[in-house]
Amino acid sequence: MDIGSVNYLPYEVFVDVFGNVVEKCPLITAAVWSRRPFSSLADLEASINDFIDALPESGKEGILRVHPDLTGRDLQSGTLTRESREEQVQAGLDTLTTAEVSRMARLNTEYKDHFGFPFVICARMNNKATILRQLEERLRNERTIERACAIDEVKKICHLRLQGLVVPETSNKL
Amino acid sequence: MDIGSVNYLPYEVFVDVFGNVVEKCPLITAAVWSRRPFSSLADLEASINDFIDALPESGKEGILRVHPDLTGRDLQSGTLTRESREEQVQAGLDTLTTAEVSRMARLNTEYKDHFGFPFVICARMNNKATILRQLEERLRNERTIERACAIDEVKKICHLRLQGLVVPETSNKL
Repeated sequence: MDIGSVNYLPYEVFVDVFGNVVEKCPLITAAVWSRRPFSSLADLEASINDFIDALPESGKEGILRVHPDLTGRDLQSGTLTRESREEQVQAGLDTLTTAEVSRMARLNTEYKDHFGFPFVICARMNNKATILRQLEERLRNERTIERACAIDEVKKICHLRLQGLVVPETSNKL
Repeated sequence: MDIGSVNYLPYEVFVDVFGNVVEKCPLITAAVWSRRPFSSLADLEASINDFIDALPESGKEGILRVHPDLTGRDLQSGTLTRESREEQVQAGLDTLTTAEVSRMARLNTEYKDHFGFPFVICARMNNKATILRQLEERLRNERTIERACAIDEVKKICHLRLQGLVVPETSNKL
C-alpha cells in the first residue's frame, strides 16, 4: 500500500491495518486518522510521534505498561501479538538457554519493580546479547531519562512496523 | 474486589482486570495506575475521566473510533469484546428484526460518514427503541457537541463496567 491509498482508507480499515504499530494502542492510530491526508509515510510516522509526545507522562507510562515482557509470560503462553512474536523470535529470544531465561526474568522483575513499567526495546535492532546488556545498563538510569529512553524504543518499533505496511516513496527517504 | 485490594495490584494485574473499562483502550487504564492509591472507586473513575478529558480532541475521537458499531460487523461475526457483547445483548440489539437491522446499519453509516467516528451510546442505559431514536437525533448535532456527547457515553459505559469490578464502599455512594 502506498501513502495515497492510505489517505483514502476509512477509519475502520485504517485502524485494522495500523492499529498495532504502537503495541496494543489502537487509540493512537485511531486518533492520528484525524490528521490525514498524510504527505508521506514520514508524515504519518511524525503524526504518531507527535501524539505520543503530547501525552502526559502518565500516558507515556501507560503505553509502556501495555507492552509485553521480553521473553515473558506472553511469549511462553503464545499470547503475544503477531508483531511482538515475530520481533522477539527475530531477535532470538525464543532460543534462550534456561540460564538466560532465568537471568532475563530476574532482570525484568527488578526493572519493573524499580520503574513501574516493563523494559521496552526494539528487538529487531538488537540481539539477545545486546538486549541483556542494555537491560542491565538501563536499570541504572534515572527514572525520567529511562522513561524517555523507553519511549524512543517504542518509536523505533513503530517505525519498523510502519515500514512493513506502507511502501516508502523512495527507498532512500527512510 | 474492594478499592484497598485494587491499590495493591501490580500494573500487569491492574491492566488485566480494568484494561477494557474504556473499550479497547488499555493505554488509559495503564496510565491511570500511576495515580494510585485511589481513595475510592469514585476516585479511580475520576482519574480515568480526567485522563480522557486531558486528551486532545483527536485523542477523544480516537477513543470513539476503536468502539464497535452497534449491531455492526463485530456483533454479527462474534468478534465483539465480552463487555460489548453483553451490553449489546442486554439492550436487545441481538434480537432486532431485519428491518430494524437495516435501519440501524443505514443510520450508523450516515453517522460515520458525517462525523468520522461511530455512534457510541451506553447500551445498558437504553433499549433498542431509545437507541434508534437517539441515533437519529444525535445525527443532527453540531460536530463538537456530538463528540462531547459521545465521550459522555464512553464515561457512562466505563462507570457501569467499573461497578461490575469493584465493590463500592457504600451502596448509596454510586
